[in-house]
Amino acid sequence: MASPPEFTANCPLPIANYPNVLLAHGGGGRLMQQLLDKLFLPAFRNPALEQAHDGARLEINGLRLAFTTDSYVVRPLFFPGGDIGTLAINGTVNDLAMCGARPRWLSTGFILEEGLPMETLWRVVQSMQRAAQAAGVELVTGDTKVVDKGKGDGLFLNTAGLGVIGHPLTIAPRQVRAGDAVLLSGDVGRHGMAIMSVREGLAFESAIESDCAPLVAPVMALLDAGLEVHCLRDLTRGGLTSALNEIAETARLQINIEETAVPVREDVQGACEILGLDPFYVANEGRFVVFIPEPEADRALEVLRGQAVCQGACRIGRVTAESAGLVILESRIGARRILDRLSGEQLPRIC
Amino acid sequence: MASPPEFTANCPLPIANYPNVLLAHGGGGRLMQQLLDKLFLPAFRNPALEQAHDGARLEINGLRLAFTTDSYVVRPLFFPGGDIGTLAINGTVNDLAMCGARPRWLSTGFILEEGLPMETLWRVVQSMQRAAQAAGVELVTGDTKVVDKGKGDGLFLNTAGLGVIGHPLTIAPRQVRAGDAVLLSGDVGRHGMAIMSVREGLAFESAIESDCAPLVAPVMALLDAGLEVHCLRDLTRGGLTSALNEIAETARLQINIEETAVPVREDVQGACEILGLDPFYVANEGRFVVFIPEPEADRALEVLRGQAVCQGACRIGRVTAESAGLVILESRIGARRILDRLSGEQLPRIC
Repeated sequence: MASPPEFTANCPLPIANYPNVLLAHGGGGRLMQQLLDKLFLPAFRNPALEQAHDGARLEINGLRLAFTTDSYVVRPLFFPGGDIGTLAINGTVNDLAMCGARPRWLSTGFILEEGLPMETLWRVVQSMQRAAQAAGVELVTGDTKVVDKGKGDGLFLNTAGLGVIGHPLTIAPRQVRAGDAVLLSGDVGRHGMAIMSVREGLAFESAIESDCAPLVAPVMALLDAGLEVHCLRDLTRGGLTSALNEIAETARLQINIEETAVPVREDVQGACEILGLDPFYVANEGRFVVFIPEPEADRALEVLRGQAVCQGACRIGRVTAESAGLVILESRIGARRILDRLSGEQLPRIC
Repeated sequence: MASPPEFTANCPLPIANYPNVLLAHGGGGRLMQQLLDKLFLPAFRNPALEQAHDGARLEINGLRLAFTTDSYVVRPLFFPGGDIGTLAINGTVNDLAMCGARPRWLSTGFILEEGLPMETLWRVVQSMQRAAQAAGVELVTGDTKVVDKGKGDGLFLNTAGLGVIGHPLTIAPRQVRAGDAVLLSGDVGRHGMAIMSVREGLAFESAIESDCAPLVAPVMALLDAGLEVHCLRDLTRGGLTSALNEIAETARLQINIEETAVPVREDVQGACEILGLDPFYVANEGRFVVFIPEPEADRALEVLRGQAVCQGACRIGRVTAESAGLVILESRIGARRILDRLSGEQLPRIC
């Protein structure tokens, strides 16, 4: 056996507690944050990475670009409202949009398991092309690898994306200010419950469909309206709660959310109750939050509601300087509790 | 079960022959070319993709960029001369260099298998950082997914890369002209044999080390010298033979190679003979070919030999208009034979 390269330093994670990778390390919760903060960020340290956002902002000769990547390991590959292909396009397109960039070009890496039916691959490829057209991006470069049967799970995808930032704003968690309004683009929890209902074989009167959709149009509409957007974040792994916690921590501010203001569809709520899940933690693939100065909030809501994927947009809370890093949920009866992250993810392999 | 989306057209591949994905579909040979030509390219059709090169060339407001991606599924994760981390940096850096771009930024996607020792991940991350520093690139954005135990193979990586093209040349297979000299940057076959010697437990007097290295410096040296480079290609999956065949087909020209001019180290030749492999088809991770007008060939060789990773650079052949798409090997005794692609890859999961 080849001997591995020498250590230059001890592993900075508390290996005694977690000697091996757990599913929760990919779940968007505290363990994943620990992996990022203690292992990846110290090793790769650079200013772009420290922006702690959905993508990196780069500048070349005055041209501002956003660059991002995600891998997709969702199972099953096909689910109500989408498949791994639509997810791989919209997920990366949305990360670019959250930087305030217009997504332009995507790369795509396929890791295929030996034995995958060629027709399955063809369906996924067609979904990707339809989703790319809908989002206005081109798939310009790619790669395919095949692994032995039993060493993969049908099909894993990676997309990286490149977008152009065409406005002077910096849209990032650190731009959030006390007094900002928090807007939400629509009801939460549908993507995760669409996946879970397939996995668990739950039958409802009508299928819960994933909310998977490109968010380019609403973001561009906000920017074209000249609104002073401070931060955007899509509500993927870990759902609304993880997104808000990440932003509260990076901005060192407190976010107060009104529980009753967050829309959850009745069938989603019902499915969550059956499975013992909290919709505030469930992944979405076509929902985002907007942080914007209070005086501009009404106009932003109007702009959002004019967009097909944001008709249910609403105001859910506000930013305060009461603490640095807490998310507080104000209940129907006025009680307040901390809306904390989970250590892992309620639902593994949701994207 | 969710029903998969409807077909918009039949799968364009001959499914009767190959209903399922084979390891060979990822091997850099004919089956992989068929997958690209019949499935991916028709679905995603656009001008950047049709450049048929290691990366896409993009232009924004006069700024020329190269954009590329590769996934890495090599096993074992550690091998003499490198590991999956060095490979993931150098592979993508080299694809950018082959477009004549200076690599600047990389994204990185980790797909971890539950149970992977955290220390293994830490070693790989350190290798990546060292390789990134050596190649002059920054890892600016990333993603981590975890799949259930038994649904992956320890660790898969994806990197996408972005580079800046700072000269007016178009460096691509279609720029190759009859009369061009073909230069090779050094001996071939080492990466593949380094992997195979570990897998097969072959013991040699000294270990064969992978040639894995960044090729930025020699490419920039060629361009800085003002040489009219027509095409560059690194010799990864499918080795020297696949690279030459792809270029001959895209350029619609013939490439004649002198067998004795191609350097193969004695221990690599010996290992190939034991395993029944042909070093001309074995993958390299730090070797490339240069197509350049004959009058500039000597100066280009001089520039290459001044670079640490190209000291063994040599002239191995020439381009002719005798046929469109053939690679001809001229043997020691003057015999000529077609150097054809394999249908798959001699060595699966080599990168």
